Amino acid sequence: MAWNVYLAGEIHSDWRQQIAEGAAKEGLDVSFSSPVTDHGASDDVGVAILGEESEAFWKDHKGAGVNAIRTQTLIRNADVVVVRFGDKYKQWNAAFDAGFAAALGKPIVTLHPPEHDHALKEIDGAAMATAESPEQVVEILRYVLEGKLEPA
Amino acid sequence: MAWNVYLAGEIHSDWRQQIAEGAAKEGLDVSFSSPVTDHGASDDVGVAILGEESEAFWKDHKGAGVNAIRTQTLIRNADVVVVRFGDKYKQWNAAFDAGFAAALGKPIVTLHPPEHDHALKEIDGAAMATAESPEQVVEILRYVLEGKLEPA
Amino acid sequence: MAWNVYLAGEIHSDWRQQIAEGAAKEGLDVSFSSPVTDHGASDDVGVAILGEESEAFWKDHKGAGVNAIRTQTLIRNADVVVVRFGDKYKQWNAAFDAGFAAALGKPIVTLHPPEHDHALKEIDGAAMATAESPEQVVEILRYVLEGKLEPA
Amino acid sequence: MAWNVYLAGEIHSDWRQQIAEGAAKEGLDVSFSSPVTDHGASDDVGVAILGEESEAFWKDHKGAGVNAIRTQTLIRNADVVVVRFGDKYKQWNAAFDAGFAAALGKPIVTLHPPEHDHALKEIDGAAMATAESPEQVVEILRYVLEGKLEPA
Amino acid sequence: MAWNVYLAGEIHSDWRQQIAEGAAKEGLDVSFSSPVTDHGASDDVGVAILGEESEAFWKDHKGAGVNAIRTQTLIRNADVVVVRFGDKYKQWNAAFDAGFAAALGKPIVTLHPPEHDHALKEIDGAAMATAESPEQVVEILRYVLEGKLEPA
Amino acid sequence: MAWNVYLAGEIHSDWRQQIAEGAAKEGLDVSFSSPVTDHGASDDVGVAILGEESEAFWKDHKGAGVNAIRTQTLIRNADVVVVRFGDKYKQWNAAFDAGFAAALGKPIVTLHPPEHDHALKEIDGAAMATAESPEQVVEILRYVLEGKLEPA
Amino acid sequence: MAWNVYLAGEIHSDWRQQIAEGAAKEGLDVSFSSPVTDHGASDDVGVAILGEESEAFWKDHKGAGVNAIRTQTLIRNADVVVVRFGDKYKQWNAAFDAGFAAALGKPIVTLHPPEHDHALKEIDGAAMATAESPEQVVEILRYVLEGKLEPA
Amino acid sequence: MAWNVYLAGEIHSDWRQQIAEGAAKEGLDVSFSSPVTDHGASDDVGVAILGEESEAFWKDHKGAGVNAIRTQTLIRNADVVVVRFGDKYKQWNAAFDAGFAAALGKPIVTLHPPEHDHALKEIDGAAMATAESPEQVVEILRYVLEGKLEPA
Repeated sequence: MAWNVYLAGEIHSDWRQQIAEGAAKEGLDVSFSSPVTDHGASDDVGVAILGEESEAFWKDHKGAGVNAIRTQTLIRNADVVVVRFGDKYKQWNAAFDAGFAAALGKPIVTLHPPEHDHALKEIDGAAMATAESPEQVVEILRYVLEGKLEPA
Repeated sequence: MAWNVYLAGEIHSDWRQQIAEGAAKEGLDVSFSSPVTDHGASDDVGVAILGEESEAFWKDHKGAGVNAIRTQTLIRNADVVVVRFGDKYKQWNAAFDAGFAAALGKPIVTLHPPEHDHALKEIDGAAMATAESPEQVVEILRYVLEGKLEPA
Repeated sequence: MAWNVYLAGEIHSDWRQQIAEGAAKEGLDVSFSSPVTDHGASDDVGVAILGEESEAFWKDHKGAGVNAIRTQTLIRNADVVVVRFGDKYKQWNAAFDAGFAAALGKPIVTLHPPEHDHALKEIDGAAMATAESPEQVVEILRYVLEGKLEPA
Repeated sequence: MAWNVYLAGEIHSDWRQQIAEGAAKEGLDVSFSSPVTDHGASDDVGVAILGEESEAFWKDHKGAGVNAIRTQTLIRNADVVVVRFGDKYKQWNAAFDAGFAAALGKPIVTLHPPEHDHALKEIDGAAMATAESPEQVVEILRYVLEGKLEPA
Repeated sequence: MAWNVYLAGEIHSDWRQQIAEGAAKEGLDVSFSSPVTDHGASDDVGVAILGEESEAFWKDHKGAGVNAIRTQTLIRNADVVVVRFGDKYKQWNAAFDAGFAAALGKPIVTLHPPEHDHALKEIDGAAMATAESPEQVVEILRYVLEGKLEPA
Repeated sequence: MAWNVYLAGEIHSDWRQQIAEGAAKEGLDVSFSSPVTDHGASDDVGVAILGEESEAFWKDHKGAGVNAIRTQTLIRNADVVVVRFGDKYKQWNAAFDAGFAAALGKPIVTLHPPEHDHALKEIDGAAMATAESPEQVVEILRYVLEGKLEPA
Repeated sequence: MAWNVYLAGEIHSDWRQQIAEGAAKEGLDVSFSSPVTDHGASDDVGVAILGEESEAFWKDHKGAGVNAIRTQTLIRNADVVVVRFGDKYKQWNAAFDAGFAAALGKPIVTLHPPEHDHALKEIDGAAMATAESPEQVVEILRYVLEGKLEPA
Repeated sequence: MAWNVYLAGEIHSDWRQQIAEGAAKEGLDVSFSSPVTDHGASDDVGVAILGEESEAFWKDHKGAGVNAIRTQTLIRNADVVVVRFGDKYKQWNAAFDAGFAAALGKPIVTLHPPEHDHALKEIDGAAMATAESPEQVVEILRYVLEGKLEPA
């Protein structure tokens, strides 16, 4: 069985690439998906495709709708959801996706620096594991897919 | 992941073909399905296969049952449901399919001319996006599948 | 057990009142609910509570959201859903509610004049019964609640 | 039917009290619930009841578990979930609860100042309504419960 | 907690009355429900309420729809489903109701004479208990409600 | 999409083979499954594999358990369930499987001679179509898969 | 809202009574339920009600079925499930009930002496809290119901 | 259809290998999965990947979380769950997995020596079959997959 792993959250660092490269190096039978990580595209998609809006709220609303088609479909289709919280911004999307995944019974792995531990305690509490580095996420994936602690 | 997209609603214009051609041109990994779009076949199927009826109500009923085997199965199997409302007829099927998809948590895209905006406000409210043209639907699909605003 | 019956659809005639009065006269242990039946309130609620909009589409959208809080909650809470289609308007809401109820496995009773039979064949096909008059709906409710064909 | 309304999010202002008082004044048949709003209790509950921890992470983890018994049970039991985002803190719990409610199909009302509009666009997109004041939430509740735009 | 017990199946003997009387004598906090047990009413209800049919198949179909409003609602609402198979008739309804209840995860108690053991082996296999007499069903209900083997 | 069609019910005539041959001739993209149709094997499987029983009831019970692993898995995995009632025996399994499929929301096609119409009215009422011959079932499958009334 | 709390597991000490008395003293709005705690009754119920068996396996099987009517119904109906592991016996029922509750998304509190920590690590991992004494369980219930750390 | 079979429980004998070899010899179209069967790895995985813990409870907790990502995903993905209870240890995981699978409606086969019959009566009661040897499990799989009692 190929595992579907959804990589939610922060879009301003290369953590997804690190995980993907690590998994490829280990030869894991895993397929990654993610929200749209081009911040500008994700902000503009609604009006770019469906027409301009004079109000910022509705511009955002249109974009959010299109993005949700992608994110909700991929989360429903995922076996595991990794949620990354970075250093900047509110990142409420990441927390929303974690809650969405939790209610669907999807196993969650959180990934964030220790300084967020207290603010994220409820979300870490709903997770199966809390990692600090992309390498740890790769190791978790190798273990849960292959059942071995050491690389083959 | 190949996406299953169900194209519900109007069967008197070539909007499905336009979407399919647009998606093919973009090389999207998407599989389309739809209700039976041959109006006569869809009306007659019950009695054609299962025997004549003297009452129009039961002729309709028999046909509706056979059509529902197809539509409900394909909607349950869909990742995204596009619902088109055209210029003519009651099109209650389209609205029914939208409600069916909504209750199953399927992302919905509505497709209709602006003059239906008011009459369709509840259904548009349940949709992730409201498009006016098949081209916009193709762009939405490209974006949600490939995560890019511009064609590659 | 008191039955919750949701009366969806047409808001321009007194069919809900006829059903409620008929049920009261029979002493049925049933609790009725419905969408907001004041057309103006239902159109204006979004902007009246949450602030004006310059675009009609977003005025409608805001109203649809608030109305959906009511309708989706009551349909989810219903044991039976009666859907009335009247003579006028598109009534796409009624069809949407029928689809929503069908996907949730709620028993549906449709109520409409015979001239809509063909246009409503798929929705009638998803219904447990198709009535032409509010009196018939009351009789159905009496039968399913009390198990008797004749009034006590 | 009495409606269960869960009031998620910010615990540093009196918005819950304002909504409860407004609803009481209108005589609405509604029952409110909420997370534990005593910040200190909510932080300490794990170790206070189940024993001290030397590591802050596990102190938080223990508390999060006990709090989740309350919040998840009340959200599952709610008809409507109101999610408030205030001016301060990360408030990731609020966003998590919104995602949890969304995946369960609960109607969501968001409540926040306009300056959060952009950061909250995905969560507002998953909501049925976005309010700026507790009064608006009360008006929404009155409308969805009683079906009237004006107070009786 | 009052338990809802649905008594499905045979309608030509007084087994429901025996169980109800036995439960009343024991003072059990249980509420019984059942399909319509007046055979004639159950056969005629469709045409009696909704108008005559010239074809027997559609007369049956109309009646089946109305009966299903009652039976499916009550089975969905039941905590326990007792299914009785008597000596006569095909009783396919009873078996259908057992399958319906099984797929919903409802605990099933079958009640039938030993001569049906072989023909009912799959349905007995899906049941939690197989009884031969109404008295045994009452004893089962007393035990599962009150947790005692002997009457108080 | 290849459709999974489960063929439930009667095991004493070659109706499954007729449907499979008809579907193959039409080139339909369909995969059939069924209960074990070797009556003796189906009766003996429990004791043959898991050890003899002195009581017929437990011999039956053991066999029913093993058979249910197959039938419940295949029904859950099916897109459409065809249920055949033949001339002989009680065939309660067939009715149970129909109820099981109905509660899971699977589209059902019943297949039986008209003399069973009255006894099967509730099950036919829960079905999308009622056929009299395997040929009709093949035609229904061709129509719902290919959307055409006439063979290509 | 009154909370339903199911007390699963060990039946050879008075921990249930301690919790019930503690909750009563605090005036908590909670309703407790449990498996049958009379060991002999629970072992014998199948044959006592439904007739003797010569094989111990089938005596056990009959009893297990009747007991499962009670336990599965009460667990499905519970808001919180407390699972107690005592000092003696295999107590596989307790672990089974924990798994059953976990898959249903019920919040779990485990209650056991520290010497079981390692053997119960997966079940504690699926729990929201792990307590060592009935008093701690009462404090958790008071906190989640009343939102206060200190008794009123 | 290839069947997914999850082999839960005991990790100290070669029963999984025996089943896999038996199934391979029969040429069954089945894919097996299991928890991590390297006891040391399964105990240490949490701290090995995510960092040391001073408290044994939290070391266990971290490991349990990572293991649960694997086990819950594979059980949700399984068509059949085989649960093996061996001679030693508490094996509460095995019972937990059985309960988890039961609540999800997965068919369960238990595999254990007869001396555990009484202690496992509730879990055997929730199973479709109880086997004593890996060979019997292979025979059950051959029968449910191929529908034949004798090897081809």
